[in-house]
Amino acid sequence: METVLSSKTKTVQIGPDHPFVIIGERINPTGRKALAAEMAAGDYSRVESDAIAQVEAGAKVLDVNAGIPLIDEPAVLAEAIKRVQSLVDVPISIDSSVIAALEAGLQVVEGKPLVNSVTGEDERLDAVLPLIKKYNAAVIAISHDESGISEDPEVRFQAAKKIVERAEDYGIPRTDVIVDPLAMPVGAMNKAGKTLLEIARRCREELGVNTVCGASNISFGLPNRKHLNATFVAMIMAAGMPCAITNPLHEEIMMTVLAADALRGSDENCMAWITANRTEDEAAGQRRERRSRRRSG
Amino acid sequence: METVLSSKTKTVQIGPDHPFVIIGERINPTGRKALAAEMAAGDYSRVESDAIAQVEAGAKVLDVNAGIPLIDEPAVLAEAIKRVQSLVDVPISIDSSVIAALEAGLQVVEGKPLVNSVTGEDERLDAVLPLIKKYNAAVIAISHDESGISEDPEVRFQAAKKIVERAEDYGIPRTDVIVDPLAMPVGAMNKAGKTLLEIARRCREELGVNTVCGASNISFGLPNRKHLNATFVAMIMAAGMPCAITNPLHEEIMMTVLAADALRGSDENCMAWITANRTEDEAAGQRRERRSRRRSG
Repeated sequence: METVLSSKTKTVQIGPDHPFVIIGERINPTGRKALAAEMAAGDYSRVESDAIAQVEAGAKVLDVNAGIPLIDEPAVLAEAIKRVQSLVDVPISIDSSVIAALEAGLQVVEGKPLVNSVTGEDERLDAVLPLIKKYNAAVIAISHDESGISEDPEVRFQAAKKIVERAEDYGIPRTDVIVDPLAMPVGAMNKAGKTLLEIARRCREELGVNTVCGASNISFGLPNRKHLNATFVAMIMAAGMPCAITNPLHEEIMMTVLAADALRGSDENCMAWITANRTEDEAAGQRRERRSRRRSG
Repeated sequence: METVLSSKTKTVQIGPDHPFVIIGERINPTGRKALAAEMAAGDYSRVESDAIAQVEAGAKVLDVNAGIPLIDEPAVLAEAIKRVQSLVDVPISIDSSVIAALEAGLQVVEGKPLVNSVTGEDERLDAVLPLIKKYNAAVIAISHDESGISEDPEVRFQAAKKIVERAEDYGIPRTDVIVDPLAMPVGAMNKAGKTLLEIARRCREELGVNTVCGASNISFGLPNRKHLNATFVAMIMAAGMPCAITNPLHEEIMMTVLAADALRGSDENCMAWITANRTEDEAAGQRRERRSRRRSG
């Protein structure tokens, strides 16, 4: 059960026995007015700096979205992907609900990308899945369909199952389908986290597919979202989820990912944990030294 | 699948749908020289202050251990339990490897206690289980036996199963047995965390029993143990473990317990999380105010 993505020269393996993969979510104009205005005006400087910063922070895949009203989304998405891949050598998650934009992205992307996403409505499946097959991509399958987003884990699991099976009909192997069981806010739906963990488990055990989620949606509307999000990442990792779409610039999340990788045995000899904390210790030591120099100076 | 403990007037329910239960680990002279010397000399002041501090910090059950070489352990353990229960109204986890000490504790404790612990050797089972039945207690079953602590989850699961079935032979229901799958250090055994989660899942699904662990052992020998321990608590909670023996005075652990309870749907309407963070916000506001007064004063 391993999904393999690639960029020009690198491959990224996604699976429960590999280190957790963060898909950087920052290159997305939704809710980011300045970024949206710049991208609409053909200014990709923030796209480029976000790409570099996220990869430096530990993102192994970058999501790229150009969903801005009234623009030529296919052209802007393709241009953003080219700019990103000219700077950082990571696989891309091509993020759009517009079929033409997905295809424009698939035409320019280097390596094997992820397509974010397809939902379970017949019309969407029959539009997106042939593209996935044609361009040999992997795809995120969002577990809802015509009936909307159910609170019943069984209904959501069946929606996921339908997509996985339809993908197989189109010749797409299960290793190229990653199910997103949808993280709904626990502040509004108390059992949303429990439901998600349950669907993820069943997808792994019964369908043999990997799972993913947008890990920050779960805390919407609640205080101290950073700590909730970091805790949730540890919980989905315990449930065997191999990747998440989130913000790698949140240090607490990245430390928790390293901790949970060490704790679930996907960080060999805990070397990544030890290295990260050695760096932390050194940085803290340097800060102390600077402070004491300032005081004595 | 609910284990019910009690003190003089309160009951504590332990199960995957209840808020996570912290069993405070501090009253234990192992590795605490000052406490050991005081207890040996009949001075229980630190036992008493540790009891109050742990309950104030959120512990719902207190572990009491008097394992000091060359003392009258039964008498000291019984006295410590009486002192603790005279100050705080919580159930006790009677912690000893000495049968006479367990019985002395069982004779004086109020309510329904937990006994910590029994292992899978026949001799231990036949000494401890009759006491559990006689005093109507619950018991922690440590999943190892004559063969030692195996790295194979199957062997450890079978050791747990043997204890659960032997307990049943003695008339002890499964709800009164809590299996400890043993948290070994991941720094030495890379798969220790994964193994523990796997055994815990099987105990719940196949044996229908609750599980517990000493959550801080997992990080032994590694840097930044507090963050590892807090992350591990989130992971065991995601796996449905309903309680852990740990240090409630570690704030990061307690915040993570609250976060994970909200995220797994065992904090109704997230009220405990919202309340705790409102208090945090207020405390931070007060600190800011004091600082600004000092600066302007």
